[in-house]
Amino acid sequence: MIGIGAGDPEQVTVQAIRKLNEVDVFFLLDKGQAKEDLVSLRREILDRYIEQPSYRVAVAEDPQRDRTAGDYVGAVRDWHQRRADVYEALIRDEVEDGGCGAVLAWGDPTLYDNIIAMLNTVLDRGTVEFEFEVIPGVSSIATLTARHRTILNQIGKPVQLTTGRRLARGFPEGVDDVVVMLDAHCTFAELPDTDLDIYWGAYLGTPDEILVSGPVAEVADRIRTTRAEARARKGWVMDTYLLRRRASSTEEPPG
Amino acid sequence: MIGIGAGDPEQVTVQAIRKLNEVDVFFLLDKGQAKEDLVSLRREILDRYIEQPSYRVAVAEDPQRDRTAGDYVGAVRDWHQRRADVYEALIRDEVEDGGCGAVLAWGDPTLYDNIIAMLNTVLDRGTVEFEFEVIPGVSSIATLTARHRTILNQIGKPVQLTTGRRLARGFPEGVDDVVVMLDAHCTFAELPDTDLDIYWGAYLGTPDEILVSGPVAEVADRIRTTRAEARARKGWVMDTYLLRRRASSTEEPPG
Ligand SMILES: C[S@@+](CC[C@H](N)C(=O)[O-])C[C@H]1O[C@@H](n2cnc3c(N)ncnc32)[C@H](O)[C@@H]1O
Ligand SMILES: C[S@@+](CC[C@H](N)C(=O)[O-])C[C@H]1O[C@@H](n2cnc3c(N)ncnc32)[C@H](O)[C@@H]1O
Repeated sequence: MIGIGAGDPEQVTVQAIRKLNEVDVFFLLDKGQAKEDLVSLRREILDRYIEQPSYRVAVAEDPQRDRTAGDYVGAVRDWHQRRADVYEALIRDEVEDGGCGAVLAWGDPTLYDNIIAMLNTVLDRGTVEFEFEVIPGVSSIATLTARHRTILNQIGKPVQLTTGRRLARGFPEGVDDVVVMLDAHCTFAELPDTDLDIYWGAYLGTPDEILVSGPVAEVADRIRTTRAEARARKGWVMDTYLLRRRASSTEEPPG
Repeated sequence: MIGIGAGDPEQVTVQAIRKLNEVDVFFLLDKGQAKEDLVSLRREILDRYIEQPSYRVAVAEDPQRDRTAGDYVGAVRDWHQRRADVYEALIRDEVEDGGCGAVLAWGDPTLYDNIIAMLNTVLDRGTVEFEFEVIPGVSSIATLTARHRTILNQIGKPVQLTTGRRLARGFPEGVDDVVVMLDAHCTFAELPDTDLDIYWGAYLGTPDEILVSGPVAEVADRIRTTRAEARARKGWVMDTYLLRRRASSTEEPPG
């Protein structure tokens, strides 16, 4: 599992480059969608950093989760098993004895990416023998805060990382700062809270990067329109954002 | 602000290397303590990646927070202002017109590091004119989870990043996964919860790296002893950990 940064080929680490050069076969899971841009960004990274291109690419179809199933738990569990099947087959059929296969992960491999869990599931099955290593990367969250030149954590304060689906249940308790990923619905615009600032970013690290920040009440519409337009133009969008409650208490000074 | 990774010089990104090579003067804030190891790690990074070493290093004393003050808010506010004074002076006195100064940040610069807030304070004062940029890095959290080969987020679930000081108030509400930084007191060992696993790491990314994981109840003593011994031997310790509640609910399957 090699983290390759949020989208900018320069976000790759020296360690990742060294590891890329040791790989015999890269597993490429096709999302079934036309995420051509992401595939070519990956190829750009391989072309740029691999010195002796003797690697192969093994393409497999990424199983889709049944989003229509009433039974959410069952659907996720089933999806998890089917994905594990795919990795098990790739490792068994595509990697020679003593060889090295790799999966490239956007951002950091341990953040909202379940391939590590998948590999652990395959290991637990005991059907194929392998070891794996995880190379950390620069996450889209680190890129978001860097590009907005803001801190993730206010001094001594906690921050929560969550999903759009979770945020729809309301702004989390006990924190003033929340990072939201995997939100296809601009959930920030639905919150009743009136004291939130947002730091939003799409296509972070790529030439198409878009940044918007300000009070949610003032910029929500602009973000929604910008996002919808970008999505229509490119066919896909990846965005994430930090919601920060404006100095609500005088308990601690702002960072 | 250049993020240089958690301690392994190979965790530096290609972007950070490019930026390092554009810097005229590096600001080095002396912690007043004998963190010789960290200073030499920084020098190693400069030596290794800077091609034409024509840079200077400007050393300043890092103001200490008054930890004895009864007034926590006042003490932090005062400390913040004194640190801003130091950065203001460095920028004014050490950087030529049109020149470039840099601060190297361990891990990711936006994570529990308040230099960005400091720079924004200096900008707000309007006393010196400058622009700044933040280069994201691989955080100690990403390194922790990578080394333990575990995911940070269980599928669809939130995670909270917090401090030892906060954790002392109890395991946060609404999350099953908590990353703790800045904990000098092994606070995990004080929690009443009996269903927690811990993934602990010290000196992550360095040759002295130590990893321990398991149920808190079983490994807490081992971590405490290991940490105390390492600290005595080296004179300092940096550690962080992930606490994960063991499948408490059947609501969602584990990642
Ligand atoms: C499956 S998660 C993987 C996150 C990834 N492991 C990381 O460290 O950024 C995908 C989500 O990450 C966020 N994301 C990933 N790359 C992004 C980018 N370049 N710009 C904005 N958001 C991004 C989006 O919220 C997206 O829904
Ligand atoms: C002031 S914060 C800075 C964090 C840093 N910006 C980052 O991204 O990792 C310092 C805390 O980070 C954690 N930390 C930083 N580097 C570490 C390392 N190499 N190993 C373990 N913990 C580390 C420790 O919890 C420490 O108390």
